[in-house]
Amino acid sequence: MRIVTFGEIMLRLSPTGYERLFQSDRLTGSFGGAEANVAISLANFGEDAAFVTRLPDQAVGRGAVRTLRSFGVDTASICFGGDRMGLYYQEKGVGVRDSLCIYDRAHSAIAEASPSDFDWDSLLSGADWFHFTGITPALSPVLADICRTACLTARRLGVRVSCDLNYREKLWSLSAARPVMAELCSLVDVCIANEGEVRDLFDIQPEGTGQAYYEAMAREACARFGFSQVALTLFEPLSASEDTWSGLLYDGQAVAFAPTYRLPLIDRVGIGDSFGAGLIYALCHNYGRQEAIDFAVAASALKHTVEGDFNRVSVGEVRRLAGKMSAARPE
Amino acid sequence: MRIVTFGEIMLRLSPTGYERLFQSDRLTGSFGGAEANVAISLANFGEDAAFVTRLPDQAVGRGAVRTLRSFGVDTASICFGGDRMGLYYQEKGVGVRDSLCIYDRAHSAIAEASPSDFDWDSLLSGADWFHFTGITPALSPVLADICRTACLTARRLGVRVSCDLNYREKLWSLSAARPVMAELCSLVDVCIANEGEVRDLFDIQPEGTGQAYYEAMAREACARFGFSQVALTLFEPLSASEDTWSGLLYDGQAVAFAPTYRLPLIDRVGIGDSFGAGLIYALCHNYGRQEAIDFAVAASALKHTVEGDFNRVSVGEVRRLAGKMSAARPE
Amino acid sequence: MRIVTFGEIMLRLSPTGYERLFQSDRLTGSFGGAEANVAISLANFGEDAAFVTRLPDQAVGRGAVRTLRSFGVDTASICFGGDRMGLYYQEKGVGVRDSLCIYDRAHSAIAEASPSDFDWDSLLSGADWFHFTGITPALSPVLADICRTACLTARRLGVRVSCDLNYREKLWSLSAARPVMAELCSLVDVCIANEGEVRDLFDIQPEGTGQAYYEAMAREACARFGFSQVALTLFEPLSASEDTWSGLLYDGQAVAFAPTYRLPLIDRVGIGDSFGAGLIYALCHNYGRQEAIDFAVAASALKHTVEGDFNRVSVGEVRRLAGKMSAARPE
Amino acid sequence: MRIVTFGEIMLRLSPTGYERLFQSDRLTGSFGGAEANVAISLANFGEDAAFVTRLPDQAVGRGAVRTLRSFGVDTASICFGGDRMGLYYQEKGVGVRDSLCIYDRAHSAIAEASPSDFDWDSLLSGADWFHFTGITPALSPVLADICRTACLTARRLGVRVSCDLNYREKLWSLSAARPVMAELCSLVDVCIANEGEVRDLFDIQPEGTGQAYYEAMAREACARFGFSQVALTLFEPLSASEDTWSGLLYDGQAVAFAPTYRLPLIDRVGIGDSFGAGLIYALCHNYGRQEAIDFAVAASALKHTVEGDFNRVSVGEVRRLAGKMSAARPE
Amino acid sequence: MRIVTFGEIMLRLSPTGYERLFQSDRLTGSFGGAEANVAISLANFGEDAAFVTRLPDQAVGRGAVRTLRSFGVDTASICFGGDRMGLYYQEKGVGVRDSLCIYDRAHSAIAEASPSDFDWDSLLSGADWFHFTGITPALSPVLADICRTACLTARRLGVRVSCDLNYREKLWSLSAARPVMAELCSLVDVCIANEGEVRDLFDIQPEGTGQAYYEAMAREACARFGFSQVALTLFEPLSASEDTWSGLLYDGQAVAFAPTYRLPLIDRVGIGDSFGAGLIYALCHNYGRQEAIDFAVAASALKHTVEGDFNRVSVGEVRRLAGKMSAARPE
Amino acid sequence: MRIVTFGEIMLRLSPTGYERLFQSDRLTGSFGGAEANVAISLANFGEDAAFVTRLPDQAVGRGAVRTLRSFGVDTASICFGGDRMGLYYQEKGVGVRDSLCIYDRAHSAIAEASPSDFDWDSLLSGADWFHFTGITPALSPVLADICRTACLTARRLGVRVSCDLNYREKLWSLSAARPVMAELCSLVDVCIANEGEVRDLFDIQPEGTGQAYYEAMAREACARFGFSQVALTLFEPLSASEDTWSGLLYDGQAVAFAPTYRLPLIDRVGIGDSFGAGLIYALCHNYGRQEAIDFAVAASALKHTVEGDFNRVSVGEVRRLAGKMSAARPE
Repeated sequence: MRIVTFGEIMLRLSPTGYERLFQSDRLTGSFGGAEANVAISLANFGEDAAFVTRLPDQAVGRGAVRTLRSFGVDTASICFGGDRMGLYYQEKGVGVRDSLCIYDRAHSAIAEASPSDFDWDSLLSGADWFHFTGITPALSPVLADICRTACLTARRLGVRVSCDLNYREKLWSLSAARPVMAELCSLVDVCIANEGEVRDLFDIQPEGTGQAYYEAMAREACARFGFSQVALTLFEPLSASEDTWSGLLYDGQAVAFAPTYRLPLIDRVGIGDSFGAGLIYALCHNYGRQEAIDFAVAASALKHTVEGDFNRVSVGEVRRLAGKMSAARPE
Repeated sequence: MRIVTFGEIMLRLSPTGYERLFQSDRLTGSFGGAEANVAISLANFGEDAAFVTRLPDQAVGRGAVRTLRSFGVDTASICFGGDRMGLYYQEKGVGVRDSLCIYDRAHSAIAEASPSDFDWDSLLSGADWFHFTGITPALSPVLADICRTACLTARRLGVRVSCDLNYREKLWSLSAARPVMAELCSLVDVCIANEGEVRDLFDIQPEGTGQAYYEAMAREACARFGFSQVALTLFEPLSASEDTWSGLLYDGQAVAFAPTYRLPLIDRVGIGDSFGAGLIYALCHNYGRQEAIDFAVAASALKHTVEGDFNRVSVGEVRRLAGKMSAARPE
Repeated sequence: MRIVTFGEIMLRLSPTGYERLFQSDRLTGSFGGAEANVAISLANFGEDAAFVTRLPDQAVGRGAVRTLRSFGVDTASICFGGDRMGLYYQEKGVGVRDSLCIYDRAHSAIAEASPSDFDWDSLLSGADWFHFTGITPALSPVLADICRTACLTARRLGVRVSCDLNYREKLWSLSAARPVMAELCSLVDVCIANEGEVRDLFDIQPEGTGQAYYEAMAREACARFGFSQVALTLFEPLSASEDTWSGLLYDGQAVAFAPTYRLPLIDRVGIGDSFGAGLIYALCHNYGRQEAIDFAVAASALKHTVEGDFNRVSVGEVRRLAGKMSAARPE
Repeated sequence: MRIVTFGEIMLRLSPTGYERLFQSDRLTGSFGGAEANVAISLANFGEDAAFVTRLPDQAVGRGAVRTLRSFGVDTASICFGGDRMGLYYQEKGVGVRDSLCIYDRAHSAIAEASPSDFDWDSLLSGADWFHFTGITPALSPVLADICRTACLTARRLGVRVSCDLNYREKLWSLSAARPVMAELCSLVDVCIANEGEVRDLFDIQPEGTGQAYYEAMAREACARFGFSQVALTLFEPLSASEDTWSGLLYDGQAVAFAPTYRLPLIDRVGIGDSFGAGLIYALCHNYGRQEAIDFAVAASALKHTVEGDFNRVSVGEVRRLAGKMSAARPE
Repeated sequence: MRIVTFGEIMLRLSPTGYERLFQSDRLTGSFGGAEANVAISLANFGEDAAFVTRLPDQAVGRGAVRTLRSFGVDTASICFGGDRMGLYYQEKGVGVRDSLCIYDRAHSAIAEASPSDFDWDSLLSGADWFHFTGITPALSPVLADICRTACLTARRLGVRVSCDLNYREKLWSLSAARPVMAELCSLVDVCIANEGEVRDLFDIQPEGTGQAYYEAMAREACARFGFSQVALTLFEPLSASEDTWSGLLYDGQAVAFAPTYRLPLIDRVGIGDSFGAGLIYALCHNYGRQEAIDFAVAASALKHTVEGDFNRVSVGEVRRLAGKMSAARPE
Repeated sequence: MRIVTFGEIMLRLSPTGYERLFQSDRLTGSFGGAEANVAISLANFGEDAAFVTRLPDQAVGRGAVRTLRSFGVDTASICFGGDRMGLYYQEKGVGVRDSLCIYDRAHSAIAEASPSDFDWDSLLSGADWFHFTGITPALSPVLADICRTACLTARRLGVRVSCDLNYREKLWSLSAARPVMAELCSLVDVCIANEGEVRDLFDIQPEGTGQAYYEAMAREACARFGFSQVALTLFEPLSASEDTWSGLLYDGQAVAFAPTYRLPLIDRVGIGDSFGAGLIYALCHNYGRQEAIDFAVAASALKHTVEGDFNRVSVGEVRRLAGKMSAARPE
């Protein structure tokens, strides 16, 4: 299956281990970004994943391309131009000390892209799936427009569209995001989100608690936007380095809940993206409702253990874990 | 507020991660020492902290000065002389393997200091607070005398005095420490200690158990030495890499207990010092009894997560954590 | 006591921390192998341990010799020849992600050894104990023969023989291993194993559950092969980075169970070897049944915390831990 | 002496050793910038150096402050605001491969500063010397104005002004730079430059070759702008990792040339700044013409050997080298 | 242009800096091999380079694929199978201490390949150029046959064939290599070699000295094997870390000599491969005789400065250097 | 041959590459000391080398023992006691920046040794050679006495004695050293020194220049003290990272000069020790005058390239280099 994702890839600067930022002069320079993470995860699953973005034509941008290519992601559609890579500083939290993320992504090549940089008819030609997240339209009003064009093109070409809401308050306010995301969501087939995003962006707050609450939330979102599927991640932080993790999938007919994992957190960045990639993989391969959400949650459970933004695991590893957890689930 | 602390800063040599000493040739060379840790923590809280010590005038001593200055600690009062920096080797424990600390601090510049190295009238001029710990008088009888001079000068100048008992059996015996500490404590306003130190150094062993026991201990210490406040850290090691952590503050009127944290231990060195610094900050800013102990315990809870001797956290981070824990406390 | 162990030492290539293999270009190059690990552990306990193997005469083989010598292991009996060191890639698991081990040990100098490389009368002269594991005979049929010769020589010379079953499915099938190990076990005094190995290699599956089951298993193994002692490790993985750990020793008369530890796992490689070394030490020093198994389990509990194959702990550290756990055991 | 410098400090991201950018994921994160380098060098010489800039109030900006403070630079005048630190990627060249520098400094806190951020009467109160370089006015037209205000204030307060021309074609064109620098130079006492800058920015191309040419150049610049002194660095690259290095000082009366060094290049960044700092130190201390240029050239010769932007050497080290070279000079 | 190269890629294990092997436990794990190096260099020049090999289907083999892909090398034709990656240990020499290389490449996946693993009609379909070196046929007689099949197929399909003689005495004797290489060379268009290889493998030892000698050597090789071009690298080691470097190209009509560089050596591995890649690039782009050899020598001069096997430079960087050197050449 | 050396081994703390001390927090913790370096070099040459010292019985001292043992040095005679390891900080110079060495070796276990710690009859039993340097008697008057006892015992037992003068002005003054060294030298067979030491310690300043001067110096030293051989290292620093290096050997009959090397300096520490070890090896193996000095100079030329105190080279490597240089020597 050919899956095209669209968004920003940034340089990620991390101190070593649990050091605070600039506690020493050692930094790890890796790359990451929500949609790139999804593309890499899918490429690791053996899919034909392409990543569309705009990068500066210098050593940093080319470093990002090298990284994407190393996983087999198709980078042929990347457009070169602009002055700088966005970047972010990521400090790892542990115990009672929270993680810290500092964005330095304004004025990046992609944030300053223009509609003419992307010929969506060509970019989506032959694609089976198009994926973006709420971060991309948040980068600039132009990018929100480009996302709409991409979605419209995808629908016209019969390409399935998924969107991870990925609301980032550091990029835009809720009031700015709501109308943009609402319009885009009306063009989306598969919606991926967490409970807070559905509540805050869609203003959906059903009655009830526990599973009933989440099910009602998914049903209402489907009804409102015409999604074919809604997948929610369900988690509770136990500390900065431990959480519980699960998810649900509603396919317009019924809801399936995955088992709940209790997990140490080696690197929290990209966990949601690994869930999205797992879900896309499962839906591309026509997994059933339960199998699909089990796979997506197992994939993201494994991501908890992997350093960096990318989920460096294979389909076999995800299946083995999903099977083990599934076997432990009471019928 | 201007806080002056007095003691030794050492070179700290640590292997990487959980390696045993000299398992590989990689060492991290940082600096640390109880009173320097307090000064740095207070500087990180925005206070005007000064550190008084004696250092050799070579690259190692100047490295320590550079480190202190980087945090904004006033190093203008440091006296140069002597032949060597004290140092210590610190191996990190985990699980059932305990931490290991090897001192190599005899004959250090500060251990061989003489009274004429420090003009306390000048050093404490303009200060609001003077802090030392039981390590400093343990370094030599001369230093015990210098501490007494410092305390007397502080009292004369109206500078508040705090002492963290910090008994170290590798430096002196209980029988050597008792009379020295008793004399110094009679000049101290705020006493910081743990339960074992109060019991062993002051021979205070009240009836009762639990909170009542600790409260009685604090009351008796106050009564004996005329402290205005006594703060105790309360903790239980769960393994070499996990503990429970709390504290109490008695202000001559009543006792306040902080909530109890269960914490993974990234670096145990300096946890007590971060408690002392938190307490001094809170008392300098006229926090109430409960707020003060909550702040001190939250500060030291955060230190559990920070590599190295120093508590690299801000007042905002401490307050956020204290508030979260306080909110979770049943009324 | 002079203990001679025989087997393979390999180069171990490990990524940093929790990185996946070749996530970055940093590798740690250390050495390890079951019988070498036992020798090193015993040397760390102060014993006169010798390691017998065959190594290529180049920088890698000499690096292994330097490492063995650094612990005081006698390397004078190592035979040089062959073309390559065996090596293995070891990726550390955590949480739901399992550890990964890739062998590249075929065609190693030891795997291509011939009987004439080892003069067992000379090698075992003056020895008190001979130890090997099921890995050595798995390397080649010739090595299985060499092991038999070594055991026969040991028995003739009055040297006690221990064998850790150490079944490795990557080296040989159960059906290949069973007859070889059965023949060798008939020449062994002390058998070290885990429950699965006894069940699968010896086809011993007694009735019962819990301690009764394990005791019956040990009794039957002793009866079948004429072992003087059987020691079993008892463990349950809680995740890739945490387990429970215990063991039992049956000495032909009665069974002693060690306390059960719950342990974080810093490095799982060599834990079984550290148990074997602890047991051999205890039996060499005529520890009683209970003391012996307590020591062996405490030694291997400490190994959980040590990076690399080798148990870098002293007798004092093991005793201190065993004593603490023993004190906590209800009478 | 109190010396105030004004400009940008950036995060510097460097690969390890001679690696190309992003050849591995290891980066060294240090700080640097022309005027900060001068301040640090002067602080290392024992002077009271202050650095004026604008920094974002987050972990990266605070990291820069910690670094400045570690050398004893007065950071009290730094103004906080803006969104980001400027940064640059610096790849080390060697032999036939040139160094590579990629700027990402647009939109930095200082580049977006406004005149009201700096109260020069207050900032220069008590100062003996004010130093800036041609980089600062290149950052924005507003900054060019701020530089002019600073120079005017300095002259009014009797503070000596030095400027290192530091023309950077990545920041502005020659035609943009010429009028701005000409106006600023008319307010400058001591001009520091290299031959190319004098030729291109001032359009001064005297007759002659060799020392006569350089002397004529310096004389003409003095005459044109009314400088009290002009100092030129004189160098020839032999490869990316070796050069010859010298300089001259003209004080309105005569020219002194320093000896010529042949030097391996460990880190080329900041060599010019170390020359400027050496010169300022020498002039502040009333060194004679020859002694001054000898000191400045020796200081920058030592910088060739120091990793990072900063010249981590003492006055003693500079004097020792200058003395050795001076002794080798034929009378 | 599409260039297909065929051979082995290995894991390369290097100590840090100038450390001797296993002086510390730090290893750098990169990948390399003569024909892979050529493919990567060509991909860095913007060509469509494909690499054909056989790799084990595990984490090490996949790491090699990731590395190749990161540069944009087409890895779609890699055949998976076999048990192990070949590897080599590479210790860097300096001054009077020579570099040390230890091969551990026997029994690798490619060394045990069979003819059916490679369908050359398909692999060379659409290719413009096929390149291999004398290392590939040295790995096994089967591989020598496979190389012949590949060459015959290339000639049939009109694909140009180049071969770098790359004689390795650690892999086969001169007497074993001579007939094999002679037969293969009869199928080769472009021969790349050094003087010693031509002399020893082809037994060509013309009269004369200096340039005349080399020219005669190239002419005779062309005449003997019907090469369209012969390119020779010409170098003289000055120490383990410095050499002089040049080359010649004979195109059947005349000889062109490149300028001679004097170069520090950061990493000697892959220098010859970077020369071959430069030459192939130049010939693919129809560079004239002089331009072609200038480009190839400049490319390999730059490789002297790059860590690892791969020549991480662009066409622009090579051209800039070649132009600079060419400009310095007396007409 | 069994060679016993006596002296101090210290912890050596070095910053990374060309960093200045405490420029970052990375330190390399290795071990070294003149006489230990000689023992290790001889063990690397295959000799039975033993090192006698006194070490504290803790992790640092045991780390030193592990290092010595790794090279096969006999550590059985090391006496445990005392409080601390001596240590030194070693910063690497380059170009015009000199190396920097800071001793922190006072009060070390060996510096506080007493005569009863060493039973020389036993320690030298079976030895062929005893070696010490002028550093050992400089550590304390007691150690000077112990050295005399050792020399007397050696002479009584027919053990040859060598001494490297190794004058260190940081340890004692010339006036303190002269009588002590004179007395010890009267008990020495083979004297190793450099020209400055012979001139300053022995006050030997012959007429003449060049080789004649050095030969006269050696002859006079032999005549004065009755040495059987005098070996001098001859060198000229070209910068902190390059020198010329040679040496001479006078055996009471004639002088042989080694070729002169021009050498880059990777690590200067231990170069003299590697010369001494080379000489002892050559004399032990009855090399002729010329071969002996060629071997010693080639060994120390190789040491120029090796990081750390120890000369990690084999006899084969030394011979190969000596042969190459010897071949280049005009007859």
